[in-house]
Amino acid sequence: MGNESSREGKRVIVQFTTAPVGEGVSVSRFVAEALKEVEGSGLRFQLTPMATILEADTIGEAMEVVLRAHEAVFRSGAKRVVTDIKIDDRRDEPRKMEDKVKKVKRLLDAADR
Amino acid sequence: MGNESSREGKRVIVQFTTAPVGEGVSVSRFVAEALKEVEGSGLRFQLTPMATILEADTIGEAMEVVLRAHEAVFRSGAKRVVTDIKIDDRRDEPRKMEDKVKKVKRLLDAADR
Amino acid sequence: MGNESSREGKRVIVQFTTAPVGEGVSVSRFVAEALKEVEGSGLRFQLTPMATILEADTIGEAMEVVLRAHEAVFRSGAKRVVTDIKIDDRRDEPRKMEDKVKKVKRLLDAADR
Amino acid sequence: MGNESSREGKRVIVQFTTAPVGEGVSVSRFVAEALKEVEGSGLRFQLTPMATILEADTIGEAMEVVLRAHEAVFRSGAKRVVTDIKIDDRRDEPRKMEDKVKKVKRLLDAADR
Repeated sequence: MGNESSREGKRVIVQFTTAPVGEGVSVSRFVAEALKEVEGSGLRFQLTPMATILEADTIGEAMEVVLRAHEAVFRSGAKRVVTDIKIDDRRDEPRKMEDKVKKVKRLLDAADR
Repeated sequence: MGNESSREGKRVIVQFTTAPVGEGVSVSRFVAEALKEVEGSGLRFQLTPMATILEADTIGEAMEVVLRAHEAVFRSGAKRVVTDIKIDDRRDEPRKMEDKVKKVKRLLDAADR
Repeated sequence: MGNESSREGKRVIVQFTTAPVGEGVSVSRFVAEALKEVEGSGLRFQLTPMATILEADTIGEAMEVVLRAHEAVFRSGAKRVVTDIKIDDRRDEPRKMEDKVKKVKRLLDAADR
Repeated sequence: MGNESSREGKRVIVQFTTAPVGEGVSVSRFVAEALKEVEGSGLRFQLTPMATILEADTIGEAMEVVLRAHEAVFRSGAKRVVTDIKIDDRRDEPRKMEDKVKKVKRLLDAADR
């Protein structure tokens, strides 16, 4: 089941950022702690300049990782943490996160011709 | 405990919107189904023109309600649901969601004088 | 024109938050400075525990106010500012921001009966 | 000046998503139209599975492109468009969008040793 589903893609794609409030202008130290939780989860993920994107079979699985990342920012010393999450949950067809980018690029290439 | 904590304010304030993708220009029918889950949770909440805001003692408690609202949109017939969440989690002092508005208004009033 | 349009409702509803990065756990002083710009704009707005919501005839008019609020946070001493904006732009029918709340509440009331 | 600044990095990094409401479960056709505006702008950008990220010298320059992308979704036939924007504006030091990712990865690598 697990293998089949990873071959076919995942249902849930989640983008999130988690950051401390009031801990200086640079927050990369906190983001690195949060990202360790994502790495440790075994889920496929992508780090972008503005967020972390991960894919999971279920929304519960994805949110568990996001909340662990949120807690990691507190453990690193923050007193207040703001976390932004965008869930894209599509149940008609599984996909990988890369598929979304490929689909748009294919349309752009077709238009350029 | 519950009473004491509601007297003192809650730690976690969560703003969220959940909406179907591709189910027509008006989505209020879906939002209403999601809001029923929030009403049924017993958590204090506020419906704004752009989001629902709720407060909870723990982030787990808040997210459980948000995910029930997300599921309600699927149950109402959506094939794809996008949910945006902003968590403001402050562990140095409890507060009510109204406190955030009051504090800013007090500062504005002081500045006007 | 202005009167007619305010009677009929506005097209663009914008929710935003603007906050400094690294200026302490409490950011209400900065939010108050940002809100002065919104007050000064003459646009109808609502301050919620998590954001400011405003309505405008055009997206340009709304964004001008948001960017002035963003600048106000820098003027108050911030070195880095993060601003989140959600634009809901509906061109098939004008509405007031309160209409969105009313519509959902009407559906909930109908369901309760 | 322009060359120097592009060699040293930009001040403003903006992440956005723009999507029609009620135009079917797949919105990639609309996203492709929006992305053409970004490509045409000449700004450096990155398309991720959940958003488009761009960097600019000024916030005005960045927002002009985002609003052109928003308009492109209407031109493609949408009646209602929702656009989410996150602005990260840092005025103490210029950087490229890749720098944010590199900084976090460097911290992670150091921690792994």
